[in-house]
Amino acid sequence: MAEPVLIAGEWRDADASSTFQAVNPRTTEELPGDYPVSTWQDLDAMLDAAVDAYRVMRLLPAETLAAFLDLYASKIEADIETLATVADEETALGKSPRFMNGEIPRTINQLQQAAAAARDGSWATPTIDTGTGLRSMMRPLGVVCVFGPNNFPFAYNGVAGGDFAAAIAAGNPVIAKGHPSHPKTSQMLAEFAFEAVKETDGMPASAVQFFQRSSRDDGAKLMADPRNAALGFTGSRPAGMALKKACDDNGKLAYLEMSSINPVVLLPGALSEKLDDIVEQFLGSVLMGCGQFCTNPGLVLGLKGDGIESFITKATEQFNAKPGGTLLNEAGQKSLSSGIEAIKSVGATCVTEGQAGDGFSVPNTLLKIDGASFLSDPEKVQTEAFGNSSLVVIADDVDQLLAIVRTLEGNLTGCVYSAAAGGDDEAYAAIEPDLSDRVGRLINDKMPTGVAVVSAQNHGGPYPATGHPGFTAVGFPATLRRFCKLTSYDNVREARLPDLLQDTNPGSVWRWVDGAYTQADIGAAVG
Amino acid sequence: MAEPVLIAGEWRDADASSTFQAVNPRTTEELPGDYPVSTWQDLDAMLDAAVDAYRVMRLLPAETLAAFLDLYASKIEADIETLATVADEETALGKSPRFMNGEIPRTINQLQQAAAAARDGSWATPTIDTGTGLRSMMRPLGVVCVFGPNNFPFAYNGVAGGDFAAAIAAGNPVIAKGHPSHPKTSQMLAEFAFEAVKETDGMPASAVQFFQRSSRDDGAKLMADPRNAALGFTGSRPAGMALKKACDDNGKLAYLEMSSINPVVLLPGALSEKLDDIVEQFLGSVLMGCGQFCTNPGLVLGLKGDGIESFITKATEQFNAKPGGTLLNEAGQKSLSSGIEAIKSVGATCVTEGQAGDGFSVPNTLLKIDGASFLSDPEKVQTEAFGNSSLVVIADDVDQLLAIVRTLEGNLTGCVYSAAAGGDDEAYAAIEPDLSDRVGRLINDKMPTGVAVVSAQNHGGPYPATGHPGFTAVGFPATLRRFCKLTSYDNVREARLPDLLQDTNPGSVWRWVDGAYTQADIGAAVG
Repeated sequence: MAEPVLIAGEWRDADASSTFQAVNPRTTEELPGDYPVSTWQDLDAMLDAAVDAYRVMRLLPAETLAAFLDLYASKIEADIETLATVADEETALGKSPRFMNGEIPRTINQLQQAAAAARDGSWATPTIDTGTGLRSMMRPLGVVCVFGPNNFPFAYNGVAGGDFAAAIAAGNPVIAKGHPSHPKTSQMLAEFAFEAVKETDGMPASAVQFFQRSSRDDGAKLMADPRNAALGFTGSRPAGMALKKACDDNGKLAYLEMSSINPVVLLPGALSEKLDDIVEQFLGSVLMGCGQFCTNPGLVLGLKGDGIESFITKATEQFNAKPGGTLLNEAGQKSLSSGIEAIKSVGATCVTEGQAGDGFSVPNTLLKIDGASFLSDPEKVQTEAFGNSSLVVIADDVDQLLAIVRTLEGNLTGCVYSAAAGGDDEAYAAIEPDLSDRVGRLINDKMPTGVAVVSAQNHGGPYPATGHPGFTAVGFPATLRRFCKLTSYDNVREARLPDLLQDTNPGSVWRWVDGAYTQADIGAAVG
Repeated sequence: MAEPVLIAGEWRDADASSTFQAVNPRTTEELPGDYPVSTWQDLDAMLDAAVDAYRVMRLLPAETLAAFLDLYASKIEADIETLATVADEETALGKSPRFMNGEIPRTINQLQQAAAAARDGSWATPTIDTGTGLRSMMRPLGVVCVFGPNNFPFAYNGVAGGDFAAAIAAGNPVIAKGHPSHPKTSQMLAEFAFEAVKETDGMPASAVQFFQRSSRDDGAKLMADPRNAALGFTGSRPAGMALKKACDDNGKLAYLEMSSINPVVLLPGALSEKLDDIVEQFLGSVLMGCGQFCTNPGLVLGLKGDGIESFITKATEQFNAKPGGTLLNEAGQKSLSSGIEAIKSVGATCVTEGQAGDGFSVPNTLLKIDGASFLSDPEKVQTEAFGNSSLVVIADDVDQLLAIVRTLEGNLTGCVYSAAAGGDDEAYAAIEPDLSDRVGRLINDKMPTGVAVVSAQNHGGPYPATGHPGFTAVGFPATLRRFCKLTSYDNVREARLPDLLQDTNPGSVWRWVDGAYTQADIGAAVG
C-alpha cells in the first residue's frame, strides 16, 4: 500500500498513477516505502479544499496564524533527532552538524520569525493618508502552491520552509509538494504541520495540504487553474521555467529560485594579501554539502598573473586530496557531469584529477578557461554544474573582466575580494556597478554560502536566478510581501477596516501615515 | 517631412516604415502633421543609448533625478495653455476644466511628488541588520519602456505620466512611446522633457527617449530584448497581453494597467435612503469624459426590488436626455459598439434610446440583465465596453449576488453603497471579502472615478486588471518600487555602500533597522 497524501483535512490514499521509492544516495539502494504520484484528481480536490480554507484564513486574526507557526515549530523541535536521521538516509547530507545543528534549527527559527512577523503586522505596510481618508495595506492573496527543492529537505521544504512559512504568515493556505529525493522527511513534516493545524483554534483543516509528486503536465495544470493564486518554487531551471510559463500565461504569480553560479571575483591585491585564507574559504564554500547549495561559488573570476595561478595550484591540490562527496541522487550526478562537459565544450580544461566517492558521486572538479574563450560563448560556459565543481576564468585585464561581468546572467550572489590596503579599489569601482546589477546579494571579502535569516537578507536576484528581482525568498518580514495583494480602502467605514488600518493602532505596528512611519494612533498627535 | 523622434540625445528623422496623422474626434478630420511609425532600427538605437544612460543614472545622486523632474514639471506648467489646446484638438476631452484644471495640474503634481520621493529616499526601504552587518535597499533596474494610453494624454503619457515619473525617480532611463491619438501632445511633452534633461547637470542625454509608434512585432521585440528591463503599460487588454507575453517569456518585468469594469454594488437600504444622490453620482462617474476612464463604473450590481428598478428608470431618463459625447477615436467607437453587442449577446437588453453626438460617438447606453443570465456566461458579459455605457445586473438575492461576485475578473476598483442606518450590513459582510479579493481599491458609498495621487492609493488590482496585484501605478512612494531590484550588501565596506545604507543617515530617511523604522544614524542610539 502506498503512503497517503494530505487532502482536505485528512490523510488519505492518493489517486495515484504510479508509485516511487526514495534511494539512499550512499548505497544507491532503494529505501522502504512506496510514495504516490498523484493524478489530477488529487490536485483538483486539493484546490477545492484550499479555496474553502482561504475563505476562512483571509479573515483570521494574525495571532491564529502565528500560533499555528509556533506550534508547528515546537513539534519539529521535539522530534529533531528522528527527522535528522530520516533526512540523512534520504539525502546523505549528514545528520550532524548539517541537520541537527544547522538546517533544522534554521527551519524552526524561520517558522518562529514568520510567526513574529505576522503578529507584528508591520510587514503589511499599512498606509494611511489622513487628508483623503484613503488607507491601504497588503492582504492575503489566495491559494499558494509551494514546491521545494532536493537540496534543503527542511529549510526550503514545500511544507516547512521559508516559502511555506511566508505564505501562511501572510494568511494563505498552502498546497505543498514534496520532493522525490526525500519523501519520508516531507511526509513527517506534513504530519507535524497537520497536527499543529488541528490543535490551533480557528485554523481551517485544509490550511495545509500535501502531495508527493505529480506528472509535469498536471503540475502545469495546477498552476494555470483559476483556483490557484501563486507559486513558491525552489529547484532546477527547466522545472522552474515550465511552471513559470504556466503561471505567466494565466496571470498567476510565480516566485522562483532557480539556478545561480554565484561569481566570485578575486582581485590581485587580495590574493597577494591572503592567498591561503581565500583558498581555504573557497574550499569550504564550494565543497561543503558536496557543493549542493544555491549560493555555491561555481564561477571564479581573476586577472592574469601569479596570484590567480597560485590560487588554482593550491585549490587543485586540495580538490585532489579527497574523493568527491555523495550527491543527492542519480539525477544530480548526471546533471553535474553534463554541466561539466558543457563548460569544457567551450574550451575550459579540467585541472583536477581526483576520485569519485561513495554512491552517487563525481570527483571534485576545478576547471579553468581564459577570458577570450569565455567570451566566445558566454551563455554556454555559464551552464550550472550543480555540485562539487567550479570554473576559474582568467581575464587578460580589467577591461576584459568587465566585459565578462557584463555577459553574466542574473545570479543570487556576487562576491569581490579586494586588497584591504586599497590596491584593488580602481578595479572594484570599475566592475561593481555591473556586477551588483546582476546579483541579489553583493558580497565583499567572503564566500557566498551561508544565508543569514535576517531582515536585510536578499535570497533572490535578477532573472533567471529568480522570476522577479524585487523580492527575496529569505528574510522576514520582506519575504511575506510576495504572497499578498495591495488593497486600498477608500471611504470605507472604520469598523469595516482591517484592524491594522483602524484609527487605533492594534499593537506596535509601524504604519506610513502622511509621509512618515509611526506607531501612534491616528488623531493621537493632533489636539 | 515627418516629425522627428528623440533618439540618443537628439531629435532626428525616424527610420520610418510609414507615417500617420492624428484625427480631430469632433470633426473626424485629419489634423496637420505627419508622424512616423519607427522601424526596429530606431528601437535598436534607443536601446543602445538607454543602456549607456543607465550606466550613468544608476550612480547619480537622487538630487539630480529630483531636479530634473521638478524642472520638467515647471516647463509643463509654463506652457499649460498651449498644451491643453493641442490635447483638446487631438482628444476632444476638453481644454477646461479637464486639462487646464484637472489633468495637467495632476501631471505636474505627480512629477513633483516623484521628485520629493526620490529626494526623501524612504521609498527604497533601506534595511539594516546590525547583528550581521547585512544591509539592503531597492536599486535602479535598468532600461524601462513606458507605453501610454489614449485616454490620459498627460497623466499617463509615456513621456510625462506616473510610470514615467516613477521610473526616472527610481533611477532608470525611459524609452517612451506616444499614442497615435495624440501625437502632437506627446511630442511637445517630449520636447519639454528633453530640454529639462539638457538643463539638468549630470543627467545623461539619453535619460529620456521618445518614439511615436512601431509595428506590434517590433514592440514585442523591444520587450524581449536583453537590453530592456521592464515595461510600464496603460492601455487595452489585447495590446497589453501581447506585450506581457513578450516580457514574461524573456524574464522582463511587465507592469500593466489594462481593462477594468469596476463593479458597483447598490444595496437596497442605500437606494432607499438616497436614490437621487446615487443616480446623480453614477451619472457623473459613468458619462464624464465620455466614460473613458480606467475606473469607469461599467457594471452595477443590485438586488431584485423597487430600489434597483427606480435606479434604472431614473438613470435611463438622464441617459436619454442628452446625446452621447465624443469618443477619442474611431477605434474607440468601434470597440465600444462591439463591447455592447457582446454584452447583449449574453441576454442583456438595452433600456436607453438616446442619440449619438458629434464626431466619433455612441449613444449613452444603459443595459440590464438578470442574475441567472449573467451567470450563464460570466466571462463574456464582463467584456469591457469602454465609454459611456454601463450594465445593471439584478440578482435574485444575496446568495446569487455573491455567486456573481465570485465570477468577477480582477478589477481596479469595487464599490459598495450600503445604508447608513445599518440595514445592509449583513449583505455587505457576505460579499465584501470576495469583492475586495477581486479589486485593487474597495470603496464605500461613492463612485470609483477620481484617483487621488496619495500614498495610500492603489491604482492596480488582480489580473487581468494588471499583471501583478502587489503594485500600484499611482501613489508615491509605492509606485517607484515597481522599477527597481532589491540588493543586499553583505560585508561590503562602508565607503562602498550607497549613501542610504551608510551609518550616517544622509537625510531624514526612514530605515528599517533591527526590526523598527528609524531616522537615526546607526550606532547613534548606543552608548
